[in-house]
Amino acid sequence: MPQAPLPDGAATLLRAPNPAVIAVIMPSGHPMSVATWYLVEDDGTILVNMDAGRARLAWMQAHPHVSLTALKDGEWYTHLSVRGPIVRWEHDEERARADIDRLARHYGGDGFGDPEAKRVSAWIRVDSWHGWELD
Amino acid sequence: MPQAPLPDGAATLLRAPNPAVIAVIMPSGHPMSVATWYLVEDDGTILVNMDAGRARLAWMQAHPHVSLTALKDGEWYTHLSVRGPIVRWEHDEERARADIDRLARHYGGDGFGDPEAKRVSAWIRVDSWHGWELD
Repeated sequence: MPQAPLPDGAATLLRAPNPAVIAVIMPSGHPMSVATWYLVEDDGTILVNMDAGRARLAWMQAHPHVSLTALKDGEWYTHLSVRGPIVRWEHDEERARADIDRLARHYGGDGFGDPEAKRVSAWIRVDSWHGWELD
Repeated sequence: MPQAPLPDGAATLLRAPNPAVIAVIMPSGHPMSVATWYLVEDDGTILVNMDAGRARLAWMQAHPHVSLTALKDGEWYTHLSVRGPIVRWEHDEERARADIDRLARHYGGDGFGDPEAKRVSAWIRVDSWHGWELD
């Protein structure tokens, strides 16, 4: 499996607001997958943001290695998967709410729309990747 | 997380030829995710089929619990994730090739188009599920 950094075609796909699925490890050691928004930061880490009540927050803290697969919107035979650890958390309510607002705008919205939402942010470092049908 | 069987809205999404991502466990204990075709069989198990050379075949045999997230094609805020063990394998080349042909036709093709392909099939039993924006 190729190591980071990503080649141009892969980076372009990842930087667009594409549908994606994140996989995390449950306490049983089994995988759990779920659709997610994500956003590539300037430093190359990938922001994800969760409701503070999600069970997977504790799972990701216990086992910080995750995998994320992005599918090219409308052409999903083109896809990219990246893997690596969570290298940073943000539990501050105001800052984590600013992150979900950034994510919502990245995906074409006006913001998250719930100023009372309790959210938590995490950033994934991309250690390796594999892709299919990338330019 | 709700247990099987799936309610109607979830079953309908899963039976359509939707984009999907499967998550498996690597020998490191970390998750690996990748886009996949899948097909719900009459008995409710989910067929997936891989090239016989894929590293994840051995990983799935060593750790048979997987998670699969299907995104509704063109409306991907509607999504469904299912989890469970691989309960059956098919290593016979001719039968596994018939399975990938069924998958290719399910996704709108004329068949897999490579009569020499070496493939392996696996069937997932759905033990639990979670969904979002399902009818």
